[in-house]
Amino acid sequence: MRAVELIMDKRSGGEHSEAQIRFLVEGYTKGQIPDYQISAWMMAVYFRGMSFRETGYLTRAMIDSGEVLPLEGLAGPLVDKHSTGGVGDKISLMLAPLAVACGLKVPMMSGRALGHTGGTLDKLDAIPGFSTKLTNDQIRQALVEVGYFMTGQSEAVVPADRLMYGLRDVTATVESIPLITASILSKKFAEGAQALVFDVKAGRGAFMKTPEEARALAESLVKTAESLGRKSVALLTNMEQPLGRMTGNFLEVEEAVLFLRGEGYEGTPPAADLLALTLRQVGWMLVAGGQCTTVEQGESLARQRLEDGSALKVWEKNVAFQGGDVAKLNSQLGLRRSRFKAELRAEAEGYLAGWDALTCGLAATSLGAGRSTKTDLVLPEVGLEFHRKQGQRVKNGEVLLTIWADTEVKRDEALSRLSQAWSIVPLPVATPKLLLGEVTAL
Amino acid sequence: MRAVELIMDKRSGGEHSEAQIRFLVEGYTKGQIPDYQISAWMMAVYFRGMSFRETGYLTRAMIDSGEVLPLEGLAGPLVDKHSTGGVGDKISLMLAPLAVACGLKVPMMSGRALGHTGGTLDKLDAIPGFSTKLTNDQIRQALVEVGYFMTGQSEAVVPADRLMYGLRDVTATVESIPLITASILSKKFAEGAQALVFDVKAGRGAFMKTPEEARALAESLVKTAESLGRKSVALLTNMEQPLGRMTGNFLEVEEAVLFLRGEGYEGTPPAADLLALTLRQVGWMLVAGGQCTTVEQGESLARQRLEDGSALKVWEKNVAFQGGDVAKLNSQLGLRRSRFKAELRAEAEGYLAGWDALTCGLAATSLGAGRSTKTDLVLPEVGLEFHRKQGQRVKNGEVLLTIWADTEVKRDEALSRLSQAWSIVPLPVATPKLLLGEVTAL
Repeated sequence: MRAVELIMDKRSGGEHSEAQIRFLVEGYTKGQIPDYQISAWMMAVYFRGMSFRETGYLTRAMIDSGEVLPLEGLAGPLVDKHSTGGVGDKISLMLAPLAVACGLKVPMMSGRALGHTGGTLDKLDAIPGFSTKLTNDQIRQALVEVGYFMTGQSEAVVPADRLMYGLRDVTATVESIPLITASILSKKFAEGAQALVFDVKAGRGAFMKTPEEARALAESLVKTAESLGRKSVALLTNMEQPLGRMTGNFLEVEEAVLFLRGEGYEGTPPAADLLALTLRQVGWMLVAGGQCTTVEQGESLARQRLEDGSALKVWEKNVAFQGGDVAKLNSQLGLRRSRFKAELRAEAEGYLAGWDALTCGLAATSLGAGRSTKTDLVLPEVGLEFHRKQGQRVKNGEVLLTIWADTEVKRDEALSRLSQAWSIVPLPVATPKLLLGEVTAL
Repeated sequence: MRAVELIMDKRSGGEHSEAQIRFLVEGYTKGQIPDYQISAWMMAVYFRGMSFRETGYLTRAMIDSGEVLPLEGLAGPLVDKHSTGGVGDKISLMLAPLAVACGLKVPMMSGRALGHTGGTLDKLDAIPGFSTKLTNDQIRQALVEVGYFMTGQSEAVVPADRLMYGLRDVTATVESIPLITASILSKKFAEGAQALVFDVKAGRGAFMKTPEEARALAESLVKTAESLGRKSVALLTNMEQPLGRMTGNFLEVEEAVLFLRGEGYEGTPPAADLLALTLRQVGWMLVAGGQCTTVEQGESLARQRLEDGSALKVWEKNVAFQGGDVAKLNSQLGLRRSRFKAELRAEAEGYLAGWDALTCGLAATSLGAGRSTKTDLVLPEVGLEFHRKQGQRVKNGEVLLTIWADTEVKRDEALSRLSQAWSIVPLPVATPKLLLGEVTAL
């Protein structure tokens, strides 16, 4: 077998066998096949695509390039969620303890902020004392004692993905659905997930800009997982405006804690979009894990466990297990903010047409909530608070948005940028449709 | 400017500016842009193509990556020919002295045998004493004193092509028309050619299998040359069966010498296909060089110079200039053959349906006339002699083909392979149409 012949096969639209894909992935991981052949092959994959079966082979070969978490013998079911990334998406923080409170185990390895989207690890770093670095023994113990863990990806897990992702990033082959699929699935299966729920976001603030692109990725994820004998569900969700009320690292942890207490801000309940999506995702996790037979049953169980406070207890147990200081965290709620504040006010009466999630995400990143380059420092206390969302009625002069920044310059820059991100219209505007579709293989 | 953004532009079907292409080629040649980005970019070019203008920019940037032959002040016109490669294609050997006899100068840098096709340099090596390595001073002197030279490509000329070709070879991006075009044109223009004739071959024995593919390459060559302000003509020619009577290195030199004497084999004139194509190509070279106004005038002048023996004189002058022994060469004609001979005879009466050029080329390569790998040794005395060609009437038992090999094993292997390469049919068969079309920009 020669790499150049496999590149030619793919270039001509052929389908690889499992042995062929394993040859490429193993050869690349071991340094026997050079970068320049893999990058040409990935560009051919970009143009020609891969069947779900081929994508499954790729996933399996990538998993086998490294270690898998040693979770044998652990009472399951182990079900995880993956989001393709959005602005203000703190759902993982609430979903994991809630799913555990409903009887699942959740092995969750997450990433850091990149581009205009946030990262779960950066949010967790905002919790005083919390460590996202656990040993394999601690991970196992967390699953037994707490029911979930939240860590970064171990270097030993799926090394092929790290190599291939690095290469895709510099060769314009990031946007290939089969390559995205194998990257996501290999990490999730190597961390021990037995079934999966995907939150595939579509819209200005998402990686996939249109529902059609998002559906293509959703189908690839679900059908490829199916080809590997795993159950999964993909939700297509709206990412035209940021999720929930808060965007920023500590701010999102705060919103998650309030959510688990059943609260929102200013005496209101949790944000409706967060509540609906969290319950739906946990509902599907319960179906995928075999705890419930319908998503409605799952949602109903999740709502109960949220309302009876058991999800909050699981959260606190996890924070403590991973070294976090629950009391200190709770004492910071509503108070921990960067020094320089600005408010954006309505200049007319009417209905809010919505927030442009991309502009909001970029503004939050510039404030320091995310990274423009991999070495940028993330600031926990900066961010955005959305007082009103799409479809809500606003009065002239009312505060729509608060900005927290660590310098006046950055605050003013964000203010100027965000003044382009919204508009008020005289006639009623619908609240956005959150759930655009679902793809299941159960 | 960043390489990854240019890859993305091309991947999305965009057109590069001259500055962008120069950035890629210069960066790659200087080692600032890594192989893996150029290979991804070339695969994107494979799928998206390039406009003639872009291909011209690429050609110019490749030329500027190295030296050009210092031929300033030389009385012209300098006109060269490039063939995309075929089986039995010894036309360069006759064409160069003939074009010089008609008043042109021909700066000819050639390649070696690769795959099933022969290489001019390997043929020249079969001439006793002949050197294909000349200094720049010798090249200039050859053009002044003889009118042409035939050498290999200097390392200093178009280094970008050597790098890019090496990378294309291992990343399945050889078959990209704009990349082929820039590779051919950059070398020809860097060697000093002011106008060009292309022989783009189509058929089983050619790189381009169909006339449509050949036409696409022909148009790319001619239109790209035009975008660089150069005149050129491309002939689309038939490569379904080998050209002329001989395939093999010394054998083809021999056929070329006989041709220049106005002779063929067994008391016949030169092979009709060789004569027609050589005259046509020289005819167009004379038009491209401004010596004649129509190709018919050019062909007629070429025929005169062939018949009056002046082309033969130029040939001998060149052989002597490049260190070859004319007398010794002439003494070998008709005699210098490998030891083991086999004949293939007609097993019925009828008409020869033709020789499969690919099978013939592969058989000749296996005998040692060409190379399967770059380090294979080429044997000058092995080869094939075609006594009859497509459309000719044959008698039962008549010799159709002679094989010369250096071992019995290789001889028998070739015999067995070649017995699949022909057939005799009862009804008359047309002689093949040689010239399938012409593309001109004059």
